[in-house]
Amino acid sequence: MSAEVRDVFKLSRDWLSVQEVVDTVSSSSCGAISVFIGTTREDQVDGRKVVGLEYEAYESMVQSELTKLCADIRTRWPSVRHVCIHHRLGWVSVGEASVIMAISSPHRHEGQQAVQYCISQLKANAPIWKKEVYDNQETSWRENSECSWSQSPEKTCSESHNQN
Amino acid sequence: MSAEVRDVFKLSRDWLSVQEVVDTVSSSSCGAISVFIGTTREDQVDGRKVVGLEYEAYESMVQSELTKLCADIRTRWPSVRHVCIHHRLGWVSVGEASVIMAISSPHRHEGQQAVQYCISQLKANAPIWKKEVYDNQETSWRENSECSWSQSPEKTCSESHNQN
Repeated sequence: MSAEVRDVFKLSRDWLSVQEVVDTVSSSSCGAISVFIGTTREDQVDGRKVVGLEYEAYESMVQSELTKLCADIRTRWPSVRHVCIHHRLGWVSVGEASVIMAISSPHRHEGQQAVQYCISQLKANAPIWKKEVYDNQETSWRENSECSWSQSPEKTCSESHNQN
Repeated sequence: MSAEVRDVFKLSRDWLSVQEVVDTVSSSSCGAISVFIGTTREDQVDGRKVVGLEYEAYESMVQSELTKLCADIRTRWPSVRHVCIHHRLGWVSVGEASVIMAISSPHRHEGQQAVQYCISQLKANAPIWKKEVYDNQETSWRENSECSWSQSPEKTCSESHNQN
């Protein structure tokens, strides 16, 4: 079984291709590909408009966390075939994708559940941080409200501070 | 609100593009795009291998059913922004997509729930039929087990018969 499954991760400073992510998980043994795309939303924060996000990651630790996450997913949903997660680093304009993940499965229910779990766990555990950039040129590091260690003082994920 | 949302459907005999479906629902007001892709699975049926599916639809009725379905989705998840559903007709080889749907939403939970509901309801209610084609050239119309009127004798969806 292990030889027949793929877990593929990419951290990239380039535009993410949903077609590439979907092609990576495509399998003739599967009838379903479940996909989630996280995009930069044009938010308003204290009267300032978000024009983009700047992502940074502890890259080797992201790789390790995603490897653990995929093993966890395969324990919970053994029929899951391939998993592919691409995450953007650096500048991501409003409307662009910061993360694209796809999971293939013989039937759809397990894949849909696995994708929901995958994005929740990625947000909770992967050491990826984002800085909001506003239309008045101010910036602010945002903690992920779902981050499990966001209240831990020794982890920088908890530090939501204005850079200006 | 109604001017700001899009419901886009396409029935097509051509290869479906996930990028096109995703671009159709993309919105700067949304942080999430949830996608489902149904693909032809290389199944074994009574010792015969499925090599492809042949789809037929009652096209005007599909349009009407999907319009109703989108209205239903917007009642259940009012924050859903855009919905796009492309469904293939005619021959779909193993591994290729027969349906691609995407839903954009400000946050991910409502979009993910809406996509799950959307594919379940489409399978239950849209008048689209598929014929399995096997490696020995035999074919068989397959009823959709989720079709709500599959037991109703006046609807052809209930007729699972071998064409050979």
